[in-house]
Amino acid sequence: MKILIKNASYVVRDVNRIEKNVDILINGNKISKVGEFSHTWLNKDDIKIINASGKAVIPGLINTHTHLYQHLLKGHQDNLSLVKWCEKVTFPLIELILKEQSGGEAEIFSYYWSLLASIEMLRNGVTTFINLGLTLNSVFKAWEDIGIRGVGAITYADMWIPDKLKLKKRQFKEKTLRFINRWHLTPSPNPHIYIMLGPSAPFLCSENLLLWIREQATQKKMKIHTHLSETQYEVELMKKEKGYRPVEYLENIGFLKSDVTAVHCVHLNEKELGIIKKYKVIPVHCPKSNMKLASGIAPVNKMITMGIDVALGTDGSASNDNQDIFEEMRIASFLQKVASNSAAAISAKDVFKMATECGALACGINAGTIDEGRLADIALINLNQPHLLPLGDLINMIVYCVRGSDVETVLVNGQIIIRNGKLTTLSEEEIIKEAKKIIGNKLNNTGIIINN
Amino acid sequence: MKILIKNASYVVRDVNRIEKNVDILINGNKISKVGEFSHTWLNKDDIKIINASGKAVIPGLINTHTHLYQHLLKGHQDNLSLVKWCEKVTFPLIELILKEQSGGEAEIFSYYWSLLASIEMLRNGVTTFINLGLTLNSVFKAWEDIGIRGVGAITYADMWIPDKLKLKKRQFKEKTLRFINRWHLTPSPNPHIYIMLGPSAPFLCSENLLLWIREQATQKKMKIHTHLSETQYEVELMKKEKGYRPVEYLENIGFLKSDVTAVHCVHLNEKELGIIKKYKVIPVHCPKSNMKLASGIAPVNKMITMGIDVALGTDGSASNDNQDIFEEMRIASFLQKVASNSAAAISAKDVFKMATECGALACGINAGTIDEGRLADIALINLNQPHLLPLGDLINMIVYCVRGSDVETVLVNGQIIIRNGKLTTLSEEEIIKEAKKIIGNKLNNTGIIINN
Repeated sequence: MKILIKNASYVVRDVNRIEKNVDILINGNKISKVGEFSHTWLNKDDIKIINASGKAVIPGLINTHTHLYQHLLKGHQDNLSLVKWCEKVTFPLIELILKEQSGGEAEIFSYYWSLLASIEMLRNGVTTFINLGLTLNSVFKAWEDIGIRGVGAITYADMWIPDKLKLKKRQFKEKTLRFINRWHLTPSPNPHIYIMLGPSAPFLCSENLLLWIREQATQKKMKIHTHLSETQYEVELMKKEKGYRPVEYLENIGFLKSDVTAVHCVHLNEKELGIIKKYKVIPVHCPKSNMKLASGIAPVNKMITMGIDVALGTDGSASNDNQDIFEEMRIASFLQKVASNSAAAISAKDVFKMATECGALACGINAGTIDEGRLADIALINLNQPHLLPLGDLINMIVYCVRGSDVETVLVNGQIIIRNGKLTTLSEEEIIKEAKKIIGNKLNNTGIIINN
Repeated sequence: MKILIKNASYVVRDVNRIEKNVDILINGNKISKVGEFSHTWLNKDDIKIINASGKAVIPGLINTHTHLYQHLLKGHQDNLSLVKWCEKVTFPLIELILKEQSGGEAEIFSYYWSLLASIEMLRNGVTTFINLGLTLNSVFKAWEDIGIRGVGAITYADMWIPDKLKLKKRQFKEKTLRFINRWHLTPSPNPHIYIMLGPSAPFLCSENLLLWIREQATQKKMKIHTHLSETQYEVELMKKEKGYRPVEYLENIGFLKSDVTAVHCVHLNEKELGIIKKYKVIPVHCPKSNMKLASGIAPVNKMITMGIDVALGTDGSASNDNQDIFEEMRIASFLQKVASNSAAAISAKDVFKMATECGALACGINAGTIDEGRLADIALINLNQPHLLPLGDLINMIVYCVRGSDVETVLVNGQIIIRNGKLTTLSEEEIIKEAKKIIGNKLNNTGIIINN
């Protein structure tokens, strides 16, 4: 099947290449042609046409860090910093989920939270995300059914967290190898399901575990996704227990390579910034989460000045509490400006690149720009609205003025998933109806606030 | 005409009073009854019914500081701090507007920017705003035609700004008195048009002018809206020129009273915070603007702890660049959390109050809560959406998860202005069409980026 995106008023191929009044031809799951071209040679029976007049066509946005299960914790608490927040907000829910990790009801429950979070992201123009989280088959199934591209970073932790949340070492190694075989080493990979290795954070994992993960990643050519230096607490703990700051420690044990995406990187000193750059580690910035949990402000302006590629994430909905990468882009920019005491600190172009090209690099996917041969992951923004008129500099407008709700059409892997605001792959009404029932039943009497 | 908002799933009467499954009766421009009540006595011919099942009904939000004309400057620049930004971004546009302050074409131009910004605010649940700006009859006419409640704070400045932007002293005094007579001292005030006195900032006004404004405000029982201590530059300038910091200076000349709303209040020391509290001045916090222009972070957490009523504003679209008070609420909360190094710093409740009750106090209008006798300024939020499910704590959800685009219906002064997402008073398509043409013609060759 071919798709023709016709007469696009603007195509943002990347931050430095904006074209006007062009067409995009999609063949299968790839972008096959971009430009002004005659359509006479196209067989009209074999082609879907999307009229993109009055629209800006952008590469699908990439949410490089989230935790889907936290969709259940939206609006739950807004007064706890990370450690207390883990104890009071996320751990009780994780315990509830793990208690029945397999089995019909638990799988259905997970399927629905995963669908809800995926719909929220799609509606905000997100075509790919990294989910550091509880890896369940039903979570993956939701991505496939709805048609989003998800990267499951399989969580590990064998320290600091409550015993009841820890997997036994043998158990998680076996599980991981099973997942690697099923999803990564397969001869016909699923375009909606990628996996990564996901050690939760250096202070949550034994050295032994980290080295095993490093070995697997290198052997099997996989990426690693981990939290890193989110709080001052973590830095102090690592200094006390290992004698090193977290980034230094990871360097010392030989963990760092360019396959590592490191989420947060709030508390890095100059030396650690140098280490990140040296190994081409990709920091993932989650500004709203860092603000809400009062974790601190990551030195992103400095990173970008140093030439480090930084990606962008919303983090989970318990610490944000939404999955709107447009809002995340502008807050990333504004936060660096005020923190750096310079209005010239990171620009709209910088953050747009974080949410597209750098996200693709972090996920290891052939996307992030609109170019021939790239995956057809694309979002169309409706520009014909009072709040986008007059249209100033296009990248500034996209970053500072466009809202997630202005996204009208979304393609993932060459498939139209949202068209004119409507989900095409599943029935949104049915999902809402079922989700209310299933989530309501499950969370009842758990202490998790739920008003539906 | 009566309106019945029926079966509202939630009514947020104020942050501490949330009621479930109640009705709201509106009679004329006021809320006449809230609760569970029989409708048999209502004459159904004389009543419009809004089904509010699945909705949260909230007091209309109040945007306590904006500059409507900056709608034209969205996405224009993102690398300048206040002083340079004035010189390069706002002053050239003001000059263009002032050049033809009266006359057909200029009036039409102003009418359209005013409509566009008003639509953006209405769609975000804003029912009342304060516009510190160029006061033109056509700007006011737009508010009346569309049905929003606007407060025009008439701008003054006779120092620091370029000569060509200064009004002659006699001229502006005459103009002000004319406006006061027409809009404030009238026996039948227009519900859509209020006015305030708007000295731009202490460093932009001569003492003479400030004292004249103080005298007018006291004599005529008017409010004063002014920028105050937005930048460190302003503080240093005032210290150098007057020997005092801005707030101390205003106290010294007898300017401060509880009728003053002071926008920004970023750079206040302990003594100045005490002065603000003593005179019951209402600071207006504009977090995103302060971030974008790298002005600094206002000590809002401290203000609230001290019991100061703080209101919330988006500021103009050249320094934000949107007019979404939901986004402003969450960023206000998150910014204080990270700046105070405490996740417990100002809560969702605090910021919701800023955007409702404190806004009403700042505007001097009988609104901000849903109570009998209050103005019927109300917004309905559609809760039945994947990103609002499950519904956690309602105020947390409204502040952290609801997007402006979730606002479905908006009433101002007892009139339904937006119903099911559609503007009822004017044709949005016609406005967009006309605005594109008129703004395009006007801004062509001015150096203001415009892509429409």
